[in-house]
Amino acid sequence: MTTEPADPASRDLFRVIREWPIYDPHSHIDPHRPAARNFDEVLGYHYYTELAHSAGMPAEQVSPSLSPRERARNLAASLERIDNTVQYSWLLHIARRFHGFDGPAIDRSTIDTLYDRADHERDGPAWDQRVWNETKLEAVFLTNEFDDSLEGWDRSRYVPCLRTDDLVLKLHEPATMERLKRATNVDVVDLASLRLAIGAIFAYFVERGARACAISLPPDFAPRRATSKSAVTPIRRALHGMDLRPDEHEVNRRTVFWMLAEFCAEYRLPFDLMIGPIRGVYPAGVQGGRDLFDRRVSLYEYRELFNHFSDVTIPISTLSPDAGAELVAYSWIFPNVVPMGHWWYSNLPAFIAADLKARLQGVPKTKLIGYYSDAYKLEFIAPKFHMYRRLLAETLAEEGMRGRGWSEERALKLARLVLLDNPRRMFGREPADGGATA
Amino acid sequence: MTTEPADPASRDLFRVIREWPIYDPHSHIDPHRPAARNFDEVLGYHYYTELAHSAGMPAEQVSPSLSPRERARNLAASLERIDNTVQYSWLLHIARRFHGFDGPAIDRSTIDTLYDRADHERDGPAWDQRVWNETKLEAVFLTNEFDDSLEGWDRSRYVPCLRTDDLVLKLHEPATMERLKRATNVDVVDLASLRLAIGAIFAYFVERGARACAISLPPDFAPRRATSKSAVTPIRRALHGMDLRPDEHEVNRRTVFWMLAEFCAEYRLPFDLMIGPIRGVYPAGVQGGRDLFDRRVSLYEYRELFNHFSDVTIPISTLSPDAGAELVAYSWIFPNVVPMGHWWYSNLPAFIAADLKARLQGVPKTKLIGYYSDAYKLEFIAPKFHMYRRLLAETLAEEGMRGRGWSEERALKLARLVLLDNPRRMFGREPADGGATA
Amino acid sequence: MTTEPADPASRDLFRVIREWPIYDPHSHIDPHRPAARNFDEVLGYHYYTELAHSAGMPAEQVSPSLSPRERARNLAASLERIDNTVQYSWLLHIARRFHGFDGPAIDRSTIDTLYDRADHERDGPAWDQRVWNETKLEAVFLTNEFDDSLEGWDRSRYVPCLRTDDLVLKLHEPATMERLKRATNVDVVDLASLRLAIGAIFAYFVERGARACAISLPPDFAPRRATSKSAVTPIRRALHGMDLRPDEHEVNRRTVFWMLAEFCAEYRLPFDLMIGPIRGVYPAGVQGGRDLFDRRVSLYEYRELFNHFSDVTIPISTLSPDAGAELVAYSWIFPNVVPMGHWWYSNLPAFIAADLKARLQGVPKTKLIGYYSDAYKLEFIAPKFHMYRRLLAETLAEEGMRGRGWSEERALKLARLVLLDNPRRMFGREPADGGATA
Repeated sequence: MTTEPADPASRDLFRVIREWPIYDPHSHIDPHRPAARNFDEVLGYHYYTELAHSAGMPAEQVSPSLSPRERARNLAASLERIDNTVQYSWLLHIARRFHGFDGPAIDRSTIDTLYDRADHERDGPAWDQRVWNETKLEAVFLTNEFDDSLEGWDRSRYVPCLRTDDLVLKLHEPATMERLKRATNVDVVDLASLRLAIGAIFAYFVERGARACAISLPPDFAPRRATSKSAVTPIRRALHGMDLRPDEHEVNRRTVFWMLAEFCAEYRLPFDLMIGPIRGVYPAGVQGGRDLFDRRVSLYEYRELFNHFSDVTIPISTLSPDAGAELVAYSWIFPNVVPMGHWWYSNLPAFIAADLKARLQGVPKTKLIGYYSDAYKLEFIAPKFHMYRRLLAETLAEEGMRGRGWSEERALKLARLVLLDNPRRMFGREPADGGATA
Repeated sequence: MTTEPADPASRDLFRVIREWPIYDPHSHIDPHRPAARNFDEVLGYHYYTELAHSAGMPAEQVSPSLSPRERARNLAASLERIDNTVQYSWLLHIARRFHGFDGPAIDRSTIDTLYDRADHERDGPAWDQRVWNETKLEAVFLTNEFDDSLEGWDRSRYVPCLRTDDLVLKLHEPATMERLKRATNVDVVDLASLRLAIGAIFAYFVERGARACAISLPPDFAPRRATSKSAVTPIRRALHGMDLRPDEHEVNRRTVFWMLAEFCAEYRLPFDLMIGPIRGVYPAGVQGGRDLFDRRVSLYEYRELFNHFSDVTIPISTLSPDAGAELVAYSWIFPNVVPMGHWWYSNLPAFIAADLKARLQGVPKTKLIGYYSDAYKLEFIAPKFHMYRRLLAETLAEEGMRGRGWSEERALKLARLVLLDNPRRMFGREPADGGATA
Repeated sequence: MTTEPADPASRDLFRVIREWPIYDPHSHIDPHRPAARNFDEVLGYHYYTELAHSAGMPAEQVSPSLSPRERARNLAASLERIDNTVQYSWLLHIARRFHGFDGPAIDRSTIDTLYDRADHERDGPAWDQRVWNETKLEAVFLTNEFDDSLEGWDRSRYVPCLRTDDLVLKLHEPATMERLKRATNVDVVDLASLRLAIGAIFAYFVERGARACAISLPPDFAPRRATSKSAVTPIRRALHGMDLRPDEHEVNRRTVFWMLAEFCAEYRLPFDLMIGPIRGVYPAGVQGGRDLFDRRVSLYEYRELFNHFSDVTIPISTLSPDAGAELVAYSWIFPNVVPMGHWWYSNLPAFIAADLKARLQGVPKTKLIGYYSDAYKLEFIAPKFHMYRRLLAETLAEEGMRGRGWSEERALKLARLVLLDNPRRMFGREPADGGATA
């Protein structure tokens, strides 16, 4: 089996590109346990449990109460039903590349052998290191809750990123406030002390090498600048656990979101927006497989943000695949809007290829951020980047070389910009002077 | 002229696939007169009258008051203007395959000879049988109004399907109630007796081999569970022909729709949803060529239905081509949501190819239903499935064989699942155990 | 470097097509100064200033207060950052074709030589003529404000087109009324005199060879027939500079728009609708680079217009790339709705190719209008049509020749229809009898 491009020009590009290091500006890796210690941790990725469940597997078959091997066996028995998906191809890639698997399929008959081969409980950090090296990782961005201590790992490899969903969307929940007070020692009782606490969080994160602030937002969210005056009361009511009217909730979401953007400006952090998910649309689904979206969404709702924070780099991912073309237009006009990766439901080759072509045709090359893994375990970075790099090679061969007469060298230079130079520069590993020509 | 794929791998797949029987899970075939007895019945398909009209032909030229031959001549004179369309290619396919036509075009100069060759008035059922055999049909689903007697044909070939638009959308029209009372002998006066009557319809249909319930819904419809209490009065008012406020109409649509879903659960029938059409957007158009859509539609509005009826298989067709990507995501998450066919304005190769690729990449293979003809006459099943099978062959060759190293055998197995095994299983010709591996 | 199609069949088609004259039914050319007299006028096109600005160039670097050469130098220094875009490829095409440029890139090191070569200030109209001839132009439509005198140029080459945005969207601004009164000598004080004045404008334009009325409309605009009665007061209030409520603004927009459509019917002018732009979304952007859109838009809002004005040809361009599929459906049904060009943010090869394929598959060929340049300077017509013709050749080779067995001759006939015959006929250079077969 080959998974290289069939077309010779694409293949030549791909073979060069796949040797490069990987800079991964968004993941959910746990830096204390980055690689999968057993194959249940691989199969536990929500793509497999949700697709198997969608194909008929009861959610109980992957219950936390089962033993890891049992869960893996149960899931493997359902994999044949989803072996057409690109997600299944990632799995096979992992089994072959990291565990020497050479069977034709991961199923009931092969799972036990594979499970044994993939058991690295005893290797611990040495296994993390081996996956890191094999994948040629350079940097992997994390998703850190605001009360994460950020201690106990090499932060130049596993780069902290401040995730802020809870502050914006769950401010009214007592647990959020408790966590915020504990993390900052600020007695958060009103808008002023809330700002103090959030500022302390930013300072803490930036001191410890955080390189981005990130948030995922529902499709009905529309950022607007709230006046302090109108926000004072709703914020106080939320902080004191009082009931809120829908319009007060809305004021609070907007107020905290705007505050986050202000701190991104102050601390010169990119503000990653992941626009689209609605949580819990399918409550009976498996863990991580319950969220969906409403496709009726527009970046026009974000205009005030883009205008006001002209100094903040705003990398954007959209969840609904049909929203990708609009992002091309907004990235083409707003200097601070940057099209980021291809995410979740939009992370299928069919959608990536269409988006990628349009981005390469209409967005300045210095603004293109190729891809991020969104992975929970290190092993997934390799197959996901493999998929993307292949699409990038095919697009550059077709669009650049055959389409516009570019040399292979020129195509590779663009690939390098998209995969390495731009993310390094935008996320602060190189001087942020905007230059791409060096 | 060849209409096989140009690429060798695709062609090899196509040549195998085209020999298979056809299982067609949605059509508008009249089982009493399934094939076209003359070429006017072919040309009378709304695609030709509406496209010719769009290209300038006055609607009067295909008036029912004209003789069939005259109508055919008039339409043929306009066909040159639409000979670029894929719908015209279906017509040529029919003329060549079923009527031995060998001219380069169907036009003013060839229509009379073709009309003579296609005259099968005297052959009657023998002609139906010939088209059935030539097309290798296995089963063709019908669209039966709720008061159809379902008598007088072989229901294992022409499978009944309960169409329910009128019950949901026209409950307030006296004719609907008259028909319902006549069909069920239930004196429908209130919510309880309405439920009794609709239950009787389901029982009647299922006893006579109905394999699905189907409905087409406008883009502004949003199913919600209505409480009996809130529905009692609006339903009674509708049943007694009283004027309804818009909100009462809405309650009634939702109430009857939800009741249909309950009966689908009770009788284990798939509930085919065809989401999008707005009727009569262009009232001056030809018969069947007046409906369009509003593209601002989302499956998010259907979440309550999908969650509540987890036991009901819900095959979905969307009318707006740009809504296809959202359907991929919903089918990937909800076990009971199934992406069905490529319908009407979405039934162009450009849209099918894009949808098909994404579905093959992101939806479990056991949930893929390839295609349905939507045909009014048997002759159209062949060219429409020809078009789809070709796209399927091309997609499997590109995406599966060249893209992921699949063998031809594996690609064919997937094709067979999509075209035959899945629809047979989901629509009840095989045990509905969800298994696809046998 | 070649920019011909790589595939032989496409290349053969392309080589024939590129020799044809160009009929360009929409541009912003200034007929008094149609070609660029220097390279600053080429680089001043908003695509370059906005993309360079998006890539980090401060707007001041292309300030009107700088000398042309200085502006050109500044912009050239930023071009490397956008040399991946299709817009940059147009620039290179111009430099090579019209100015004998043979360097690999337009940048800091080559701009001065190029600027010198492209200096045609002294050649004046002779240079216009040379570009016209080299491009094989047949007709170029203009964008004329309603108070344009239309005097001083050859109107059979530079065809007047009445642009009406100000009348619909800025009726309440005193300047609009002043201009209208000056242009018509009508004392515009109420609905009746407004109609008189606008009628006078149409008469003036049509006498002077205008072949279309055009307007760009924001996504929230929904045309409806307003009753004279309800419009009388809001129109009068607007004409007298009084404050208007939002609903009065809306009545006025609809009233004037409907009036324009009535005059299009009376004067048999096509009514070009360009649906989508919102002005000034990014106010700090460069001139011409401030407008964007909201993708949540539907042609369903235009149904009343399409039905009422069945005699008016309505060529439509949509700004949001994902709205293209809906336009295919509306063009397929409504005889008077015509899909026009590929515009602005939709004018990327990725979007054009997808749209073009669907249009060729689903819209009568006699209704297809290939392309328009939207150019401000004559030089841009060549590279833009080059891009489109190439995509057309590739689509016809793939879809028509390989896909349906068409001969090269047949493919070329269709190309000619789309590029020349249809626009000539629809925009009135040939009898508007709807026939395409001659």
